[in-house]
Amino acid sequence: MQPYFILDENAQYYECGFSCDNAIVVRVEDTRFFITDSRYTLEAKQFCNKHTEVISSNDFIQSLLGVISKLGLKQIAFNPQELSVAMYEKIISSLTAQKCELVAQPNFHQQLRICKSEKEIALIATSQKLNKKAFKAFAKRIAKILKQSPSEKELHYQVKQILSHFGTYDLSFEPIVGINANGAKPHALPSSKCILKKNDILLFDAGIKYKRYCSDMTRTAVVCKDIHFGKEQKFKNKLHSKIYEIVLKAQEKTISKARSGMSGKDIDAIARDEIEKSGYGKYFVHSTGHGVGLDIHELPRISRLSEDRIEDNMVFSIEPGIYLPNEFGVRIEDVVVMRNGRAEIL
Amino acid sequence: MQPYFILDENAQYYECGFSCDNAIVVRVEDTRFFITDSRYTLEAKQFCNKHTEVISSNDFIQSLLGVISKLGLKQIAFNPQELSVAMYEKIISSLTAQKCELVAQPNFHQQLRICKSEKEIALIATSQKLNKKAFKAFAKRIAKILKQSPSEKELHYQVKQILSHFGTYDLSFEPIVGINANGAKPHALPSSKCILKKNDILLFDAGIKYKRYCSDMTRTAVVCKDIHFGKEQKFKNKLHSKIYEIVLKAQEKTISKARSGMSGKDIDAIARDEIEKSGYGKYFVHSTGHGVGLDIHELPRISRLSEDRIEDNMVFSIEPGIYLPNEFGVRIEDVVVMRNGRAEIL
Repeated sequence: MQPYFILDENAQYYECGFSCDNAIVVRVEDTRFFITDSRYTLEAKQFCNKHTEVISSNDFIQSLLGVISKLGLKQIAFNPQELSVAMYEKIISSLTAQKCELVAQPNFHQQLRICKSEKEIALIATSQKLNKKAFKAFAKRIAKILKQSPSEKELHYQVKQILSHFGTYDLSFEPIVGINANGAKPHALPSSKCILKKNDILLFDAGIKYKRYCSDMTRTAVVCKDIHFGKEQKFKNKLHSKIYEIVLKAQEKTISKARSGMSGKDIDAIARDEIEKSGYGKYFVHSTGHGVGLDIHELPRISRLSEDRIEDNMVFSIEPGIYLPNEFGVRIEDVVVMRNGRAEIL
Repeated sequence: MQPYFILDENAQYYECGFSCDNAIVVRVEDTRFFITDSRYTLEAKQFCNKHTEVISSNDFIQSLLGVISKLGLKQIAFNPQELSVAMYEKIISSLTAQKCELVAQPNFHQQLRICKSEKEIALIATSQKLNKKAFKAFAKRIAKILKQSPSEKELHYQVKQILSHFGTYDLSFEPIVGINANGAKPHALPSSKCILKKNDILLFDAGIKYKRYCSDMTRTAVVCKDIHFGKEQKFKNKLHSKIYEIVLKAQEKTISKARSGMSGKDIDAIARDEIEKSGYGKYFVHSTGHGVGLDIHELPRISRLSEDRIEDNMVFSIEPGIYLPNEFGVRIEDVVVMRNGRAEIL
């Protein structure tokens, strides 16, 4: 195994069982060096796993060079997508003297995490289970407060409490609560002017973290006193209903036809072809899915251009959508794990 | 003015009045080009200021090159601390053909934001006012629930509601609520095992955002039924009291002696000398302060090595601390603005 160093917090955690917002982790065979500043050394020593040596440093690059020189490394890999030009220049100018080569390996750490262990799959499954519970609780809450005409912003605040199970869990990302036209902005910010009413169409996208592993789910629902986030929805508005059925069919077909051995773009094409066939192709403006793990967006990519080869034990989202600007948006998302060659919903 | 491009969200906002998590902003004279992907173009067009042209793109580098070529730019500046090696390599390989030079200017955008306008100072002042209100409300809450033996984690959850004014404001950072030994970890994570008791020493560091401008304050308090986050504290424990008075003296002296024209390290030295004189120098493990604005940590640096020249209208924190490992920590922090050569507390 080639020695490498990484900066990203989730990569730190994967290596050492601990992370902080200012550290470099160097991995050489089974040993990890956790280089951090004095603010974090107490906790790092307490929480890092037994394979990790914590180095307190006020000059990370000198400390990195110290490790390279002590171990006589001839090569060390890094991720050019995370390393800044400034840091790269500093390292390079010191490394030449040490005769150690710096090797760019784009996104290698997400690559090495692309297939999940059984333990990781169980953590993601638990995360999604807790997330689904929150979806149910949110539907109940909406039903209860619908008469008070809550705004998107109010709903957004309330759902964050519910998703976090009142402070127990962190969220994987800022939840999206998009009413009607705001649901057509795939990453809408909650508005205090947009008020929820009966028969509105509500797009809700959220996830939590359980022991740092992310969940992710999107549902689109008709607003009524029996609102729920199940997949079977009965819209009064015919266009809502038509678009919803197209997206649902695309999503379910993608889940049932995805196979290990396909590429990311093969899987993307299942959803995209279905939506294009319906004539709404140009309103499906994003990828069909993304890997889910420690990062909310990781490998594999399920996109138009993705050559990522799908294998058993990969975990990713399947989330086609159609967005009619200034009208409404529909997205339906599940997270799946590949098992025995097929996609199972988590 | 040299043309430049930036990626950072706060820099985007400063330029265009809008930001999102996937954009490049190019600034050429008075014009800004907001290059983003299709998920964000609707909102970008709605919210960017009138000096901004929004470009929807699925290849940011091609779009950046398009702007450079259209305007015939001969030079363009970037921040080597934010640009990744991967992106740099891609841009460089395309730019040579265009005869445009890429100029590294470390942290230039924070540099151009280092002196605040009157409008910005007013926003930071409002942010800090709301923050102080939350500190008062949190003290009341603690007094109320002290008998229920709340854990750090519980306090952390509750204070986030209070700081956000129940969903109205975002936080500038995850608040720190450190009881006794956990306050000795300058960036402690809240523990569910650590329970608040009478006569504990509580370190509380928090800030909110008002119209995207940050506030920041730290207080260390004795826990009792009349708990408050004022600077005058009466500790029963003699060591608590002794350390507290040293930090308070250092903090107040720094505020009263800071002058425009000094360097960041001159101001740092006021606090550091005071603490060193008391014999606790080695337990003051961080800088005396940092600039506060759109970023919670920005220029000027108030640190041991900072050559940043302090001028009127700069806004920064003054926050010396002493941390006795496994015992407790004391930090006292205010944000000041330089006015007529002196520091005024916001």
